[in-house]
Amino acid sequence: MAELSVKHLLGIKYLNEADIDLIFETADHFKEVINRSIKKVPSLRDITIANIFFENSTRTKLSFELAEKRLSADVINFSAGQSSVKKGETLIDTVNNILSMKVDMVVMRHPNPGAGIFLSKHVNASIVNAGDGAHEHPTQALLDSYSIREKLGDVAGKKVVIVGDILHSRVALSNIFALKLQGAEVKVCGPHTLIPKYIETLGVTVENDLRKALNWCDVANMLRIQNERMEISYFPTTREYTQQYGLNKKILDSLDKEIVVMHPGPINRGVEITSDVADSKQSIILNQVENGVAIRMAVIYLLASKIK
Amino acid sequence: MAELSVKHLLGIKYLNEADIDLIFETADHFKEVINRSIKKVPSLRDITIANIFFENSTRTKLSFELAEKRLSADVINFSAGQSSVKKGETLIDTVNNILSMKVDMVVMRHPNPGAGIFLSKHVNASIVNAGDGAHEHPTQALLDSYSIREKLGDVAGKKVVIVGDILHSRVALSNIFALKLQGAEVKVCGPHTLIPKYIETLGVTVENDLRKALNWCDVANMLRIQNERMEISYFPTTREYTQQYGLNKKILDSLDKEIVVMHPGPINRGVEITSDVADSKQSIILNQVENGVAIRMAVIYLLASKIK
Amino acid sequence: MAELSVKHLLGIKYLNEADIDLIFETADHFKEVINRSIKKVPSLRDITIANIFFENSTRTKLSFELAEKRLSADVINFSAGQSSVKKGETLIDTVNNILSMKVDMVVMRHPNPGAGIFLSKHVNASIVNAGDGAHEHPTQALLDSYSIREKLGDVAGKKVVIVGDILHSRVALSNIFALKLQGAEVKVCGPHTLIPKYIETLGVTVENDLRKALNWCDVANMLRIQNERMEISYFPTTREYTQQYGLNKKILDSLDKEIVVMHPGPINRGVEITSDVADSKQSIILNQVENGVAIRMAVIYLLASKIK
Repeated sequence: MAELSVKHLLGIKYLNEADIDLIFETADHFKEVINRSIKKVPSLRDITIANIFFENSTRTKLSFELAEKRLSADVINFSAGQSSVKKGETLIDTVNNILSMKVDMVVMRHPNPGAGIFLSKHVNASIVNAGDGAHEHPTQALLDSYSIREKLGDVAGKKVVIVGDILHSRVALSNIFALKLQGAEVKVCGPHTLIPKYIETLGVTVENDLRKALNWCDVANMLRIQNERMEISYFPTTREYTQQYGLNKKILDSLDKEIVVMHPGPINRGVEITSDVADSKQSIILNQVENGVAIRMAVIYLLASKIK
Repeated sequence: MAELSVKHLLGIKYLNEADIDLIFETADHFKEVINRSIKKVPSLRDITIANIFFENSTRTKLSFELAEKRLSADVINFSAGQSSVKKGETLIDTVNNILSMKVDMVVMRHPNPGAGIFLSKHVNASIVNAGDGAHEHPTQALLDSYSIREKLGDVAGKKVVIVGDILHSRVALSNIFALKLQGAEVKVCGPHTLIPKYIETLGVTVENDLRKALNWCDVANMLRIQNERMEISYFPTTREYTQQYGLNKKILDSLDKEIVVMHPGPINRGVEITSDVADSKQSIILNQVENGVAIRMAVIYLLASKIK
Repeated sequence: MAELSVKHLLGIKYLNEADIDLIFETADHFKEVINRSIKKVPSLRDITIANIFFENSTRTKLSFELAEKRLSADVINFSAGQSSVKKGETLIDTVNNILSMKVDMVVMRHPNPGAGIFLSKHVNASIVNAGDGAHEHPTQALLDSYSIREKLGDVAGKKVVIVGDILHSRVALSNIFALKLQGAEVKVCGPHTLIPKYIETLGVTVENDLRKALNWCDVANMLRIQNERMEISYFPTTREYTQQYGLNKKILDSLDKEIVVMHPGPINRGVEITSDVADSKQSIILNQVENGVAIRMAVIYLLASKIK
């Protein structure tokens, strides 16, 4: 059987094209199973997975949990708020303790970039990065590409613009890696202050004018604006951001072609995207959420097959 | 097979008498199963249920969770504290996201009256209202009536007094609807400031004197007094409330007949009810808790049969 | 089949030697099962266990949860933060409510010494004490002795020193009871202010000099130093504690023999123990964590067999 080139999913950066193809084919299979209303497959009955979240999360945590349960894995949830971390324990000690209880896989979200990579060198378990600071969020990028492929048939050759706060976004970075690897053209769009200087070295073009960017693309991935970021002066105000970079129905309808609209959620309705756009036929936002479970099932299933 | 007239359980208001009979008969069956020490029935092996609690709750949440697990459903828990709700996401987005992950049923507690009704019009899943503000708490009213029926053989014709803060109580309102539907006589008892003006339009009588109310009734349902409400001046002090509306053993023993005492929990021992009353043979408080699981199994089971 | 002499596990104080032997033999069996990668045994398919934690805990709670899930029990988690306890409900009411939902066993951590004992007299379920104030933490002591037996072949005749804050430690007290019962020699070591006057009445000797204590022992159990305790003046400063009672590699290597090093976790690296000691071959800290799951499976399994 084909297998992944990696033992962990730390970032898209560490995957090759065949890995992505394999994940997508496996996700296709699981999606079909779920759609036949088979809620559970007995694949991972002997696997115990710990979800360790050092940052709050709703949809990512729920999505992983559902994926794990549908694979019949045993699931242990661990949130930083209730933990020894507050008592000054080190990350390695916390995780080693959990692993000593015979846990096979760790899904971790952590505020520090590289936390998963660090961990993978010091503990003996498969690590899935569920977001590490502003670094990577690989399963999000995988589900985004998978949703584009589902909608448009392929990712290769497609023109994708990522709009918003590129500087602080792990979603943007992982998406850029994933899209480029699959042969898409990628543009980023947003205010100068929210686009890092090095971005063009990743093979990405920059466009500060939203309308121009949209007229160029097949797919627009509208990132969530975090108000707390706006406040610390990367941009005048949220309202001015919306005026220049918010996507509304009027702009959408004025474009030359029908583009696909994506959003990683949670949506600030009326800020980066209006309700009529989010709920329009061009939006695949809920498909992204649906595909997230299948993608995470695929990733966990493929990594688990390397443990046994 | 008989089925419910509704697709959701949003309030007792939306049920008819046959629905209640069907729920009670189904609960009888599940209660018998539990009492034979069979902890799990495989009925809902393919159903995923999300418990979404935007307000704290102990017993209601535990009771639903146990009911779901005993039906072999997959259970996802979601509390507002850990959620995107804090990030400004709308209720519909939050729930739609959860549903996109192929969740079949939502059990929701929400501080706003009507939140479940609103939701049921916008999402494609079966909704169970686990308490919506001061509006309804239908499973509580069902388990209360079920417990009366179990103790006294029938609800029809029984005289039930509900004592306490009627104005802010979803338990009171749902109980009034349920008891009237089944043909009981209902009286409410409490200070003027805690009884809403419209209450008599529901076919209920009002009595401000506790002893008179108790001498009239077969069953007294003593509502929990929320100290935070007392403080904002609906009534002088908690101590004075207890003096006028608290039920103690002396009053209980001085009545002409042996009444049944109920309480929805959690009890403020020494406030609305004394310990010797709560623990007396006339109290069916723990039976209410026990019946709660069977009633919730019945409701979920019956609604699930309409999904498939 | 052999069975425990007790219905609850409230403290080591209430066990006899045969109980400990039986728990260890049962744990041997479960450990072997886990090591054969069989993650689940169907032993307790009809048992529902509530984990009620009135104090935060990471490893103990996770360890119990894993043990319960590996026995195929149904697990209900209940933390004080989300609970009716905040609303002023009594402990007995809280637990009675949970039990009315047909829960068979309660695993409880509580800040008050004796909370489990109190509960066991008032409710009808098997109680496992997961730590009650400064009183006892019996499963920790069991897993500690089990780990010594695993490493050194036997507990009887071994010399064990417990180093640190003996005054406030439930781990120390339960360990003293367990080790003495099994025929070990026990010494406690620490500053005068952190060793209670009555300790020698338990058949334990006292040594204030760390080096002397270590030269005497086969096993050193280094307790965690809680900074909040140091601050309230039981000892000058944490730094001075470390200078006098911290275990580092230099001291360890200067001893006449190779002792075994234990720690109940979470470790304050650089305070009571340095990293090179914690991670050395003489340390069995991670074995303790691993054995914790097997010991808890054994305790729950044996208590459950007395329920049915």
